Amino acid sequence: MAVRVDLMISLDGFATTTDQTPEVPFGEDWPRLVGAYVATRTFRERVFHDTTGAGTTGVDDDYAKAYFEDVGAEVMGAGMFGLHNFPDDPNWRGWWGEEPPFRCPVFVLTHAARPSIAMAGGTTFHFLNASVEEALRQAHAVAQGRDVRIGGGPTVVRSYLKAGLVDCLHVAIAPILLGRGIRLWDDLRGLESGYTVKAETAQSGTIHLTFRR
Amino acid sequence: MAVRVDLMISLDGFATTTDQTPEVPFGEDWPRLVGAYVATRTFRERVFHDTTGAGTTGVDDDYAKAYFEDVGAEVMGAGMFGLHNFPDDPNWRGWWGEEPPFRCPVFVLTHAARPSIAMAGGTTFHFLNASVEEALRQAHAVAQGRDVRIGGGPTVVRSYLKAGLVDCLHVAIAPILLGRGIRLWDDLRGLESGYTVKAETAQSGTIHLTFRR
Repeated sequence: MAVRVDLMISLDGFATTTDQTPEVPFGEDWPRLVGAYVATRTFRERVFHDTTGAGTTGVDDDYAKAYFEDVGAEVMGAGMFGLHNFPDDPNWRGWWGEEPPFRCPVFVLTHAARPSIAMAGGTTFHFLNASVEEALRQAHAVAQGRDVRIGGGPTVVRSYLKAGLVDCLHVAIAPILLGRGIRLWDDLRGLESGYTVKAETAQSGTIHLTFRR
Repeated sequence: MAVRVDLMISLDGFATTTDQTPEVPFGEDWPRLVGAYVATRTFRERVFHDTTGAGTTGVDDDYAKAYFEDVGAEVMGAGMFGLHNFPDDPNWRGWWGEEPPFRCPVFVLTHAARPSIAMAGGTTFHFLNASVEEALRQAHAVAQGRDVRIGGGPTVVRSYLKAGLVDCLHVAIAPILLGRGIRLWDDLRGLESGYTVKAETAQSGTIHLTFRR
């Protein structure tokens, strides 16, 4: 029943780029930011439906596997679903393809509620105009005793961290400097107190940092 | 003849706190920021003249040893010498005690030049109102073929990084969030290109990151 976060950030702390366009939905920096994850065997299988067994194994893949384990429901911001780029398209079904990797109920925080969308593979997107506490309550209610993941982006994650609602924060730090975007760490002074912090480095150069209660 | 930097920063990228006072010259956050270094056997011996052999060994101490090896001259900002807190005291001899740990010529960048100060143990402080390039030229000239270290603070280090003058940047990241201070990483987009980046974690939780040409 833990509340978990997994995010990738750059060395200078940017979790999301701000150069998104409809043509380049996550921005030009996104491939470098998430490259080590995208290269893993688990990510390729789960997100891209690549069943050839291609992809890296090792530390990055261990974290990618853990990302998908024991999650019973997810909460994400409108940007992570892709609403910001297509706010007025009622038929928009998200960035994640017709069979999204979540395979559980996903609550998308948005000020403009819309009907739920059931996708292949067990993912249902629900749209909520609610506080972070209320969204978490609804996620727990359907998670069948499993964990709830706060999926991102950084603004939503920061809200949950500031509210003291996160049990386990895993941050994968890519060894690059973006110099622009939305910062994860802003205004989180002293976050480490109350957590045990562990750091581990992967062959890709990615630093995996875990804050655990 | 390499130009080297060693800095400690927090997870959110702050290398210097901004709460310094004459009573608490490095700010209240400083002990947490540099705690892992201060605890090492090498730092205790070199900075505090503790010859009992006390202090940690291991990864942090390896980096602390390397910090002092093969440095023939150092360049630092006025704040690191302590000028910002006592700008009008002509007798101010710096934060570093009567036998500073540098044991080489140290060039302090300041707009108000003052006479050089020779200290015990081989350290001489010179005060320069000069560009970063000119300060580096003067440091190389007296380094006797050894490395030049850019000692800090973050503003001076950033100037050298942006000018492309740093061959080896070692950053020790403390697993804490300060939420305030002066950031090292601002405006350094793409710094990693041209460097090989290596990350290593110490028992203290410190992440040692090295950018090497």
